Amino acid sequence: MLGVVMIESKDNPKIKKYFKLLHKKSCRDDLNRFTLEGVRVLKDALESGIVFDDVFITKSCISKIRHTEYDISNLCEYDVISDKVAKHISGVDRSQGAFAIASKPPGILAQDISNSDFVLALCFIQDPGNLGTLIRTADAFGFSKIVLSGCCDIYNPKVVRSTAGSLFRVSFLECFDFLSFLEDVDLKKYAAVVDEAALPISELDLKGEGAVLVIGNEANGLPSEIVKECDKKITIDMSGAANSLNAAVAGAVCMYKFREVRKRGF
Amino acid sequence: MLGVVMIESKDNPKIKKYFKLLHKKSCRDDLNRFTLEGVRVLKDALESGIVFDDVFITKSCISKIRHTEYDISNLCEYDVISDKVAKHISGVDRSQGAFAIASKPPGILAQDISNSDFVLALCFIQDPGNLGTLIRTADAFGFSKIVLSGCCDIYNPKVVRSTAGSLFRVSFLECFDFLSFLEDVDLKKYAAVVDEAALPISELDLKGEGAVLVIGNEANGLPSEIVKECDKKITIDMSGAANSLNAAVAGAVCMYKFREVRKRGF
Repeated sequence: MLGVVMIESKDNPKIKKYFKLLHKKSCRDDLNRFTLEGVRVLKDALESGIVFDDVFITKSCISKIRHTEYDISNLCEYDVISDKVAKHISGVDRSQGAFAIASKPPGILAQDISNSDFVLALCFIQDPGNLGTLIRTADAFGFSKIVLSGCCDIYNPKVVRSTAGSLFRVSFLECFDFLSFLEDVDLKKYAAVVDEAALPISELDLKGEGAVLVIGNEANGLPSEIVKECDKKITIDMSGAANSLNAAVAGAVCMYKFREVRKRGF
Repeated sequence: MLGVVMIESKDNPKIKKYFKLLHKKSCRDDLNRFTLEGVRVLKDALESGIVFDDVFITKSCISKIRHTEYDISNLCEYDVISDKVAKHISGVDRSQGAFAIASKPPGILAQDISNSDFVLALCFIQDPGNLGTLIRTADAFGFSKIVLSGCCDIYNPKVVRSTAGSLFRVSFLECFDFLSFLEDVDLKKYAAVVDEAALPISELDLKGEGAVLVIGNEANGLPSEIVKECDKKITIDMSGAANSLNAAVAGAVCMYKFREVRKRGF
């Protein structure tokens, strides 16, 4: 515990900083910081080596987590905040009352990609829930490096929440010239498309090589110039009446299949 | 076009009815009606035989959809509403200005299930986005009958939206005694679980038989008494650091795999 006095005012400079970081991407970019909420997320972040500037916990939260596996109050210094302040800075309906301002971990470099097994490349994913779910799924299926181009901010609080801790276990490369990246990367590139002429993923064969799986925007898919730069077009064989899938679902089914094919030794 | 006068008041009885149906499950249950928003959703519903009581469209929407494939103004009678009224009854940030009150289509009976190929059974799915995505994915992979037990309302506007029209193409059985249903149904039942002792879905063999895929709650999975009543426990083989998947993602990967195994003739 840091201060002896509870923070009860929204105008406290630390609280004002948290609030700005929560709501403004420009502030997160300028300060190279982001916000976290929830005891489990805070614990996941600490365990993954994320560095906290400030931690805020309500009294009721401290007593709830005491003697549980989620007792983060022993792991870091914190300020006690009032329930009213907690409500003010919370991004969810039922806040647990635990918050942190953290430093963004460093990204990876383009040259770190080429000696990878599986890489996920996301182009123009706009929905924070979809982006978070894709990151969580990538972590589950061993796509530990993620390339982002034109996506929404991975430190958007909705993204952070829906990654369920996976945000801190995978590495990111923010890519401003995605075409050049694709040209340069020394792995086979697979563009996920809705196209009957593409290879059905049920027939995927990776020939033991590393792969970049490229997933596009929710509504428009991948731009044609990006598809052209990839080695193969793959598609999910469907059979029902719907002719499209949610982007996070499509990405997940492809990632599962890549993992399964590799497990079989191909 | 129905009335010659534009509806400009929130207190119009039809608008008040829409507003209640939008926000209250009890009202949807009592009146056996639900709400729809968006030109594409309205068109999907009409094409699937959904019956509308009332349709509301803004002037700007009518001129936008004229001469497009989404021109629903020729397909049904409607009232013109002001932009202010549209904003009042909209459930999204950027409304297109098209709304309908529709009759719920009839559900299916338990005896309609046994001669099915693939059935999706959802227990205690609480998040509307997850439920909608599961319904959309079921439609894509040929799980055209869905059993619901203790889930959130399929006519919740967030569910309707995230099904992307699939809501009207699959059939539902609302099940109050799910255990008895499982006992009685004459198909093989597969419980999706997070359990290393379960069968990895990469080794799934359906032996040409029909199947019920059972998916549980986002946080707690399936209750043990339901898992016990199933014929087989299946699990998604993961390889990364995350040890769980979003419920909609887990359901989607399983459904894809069932469809793939069937396509191979097993």
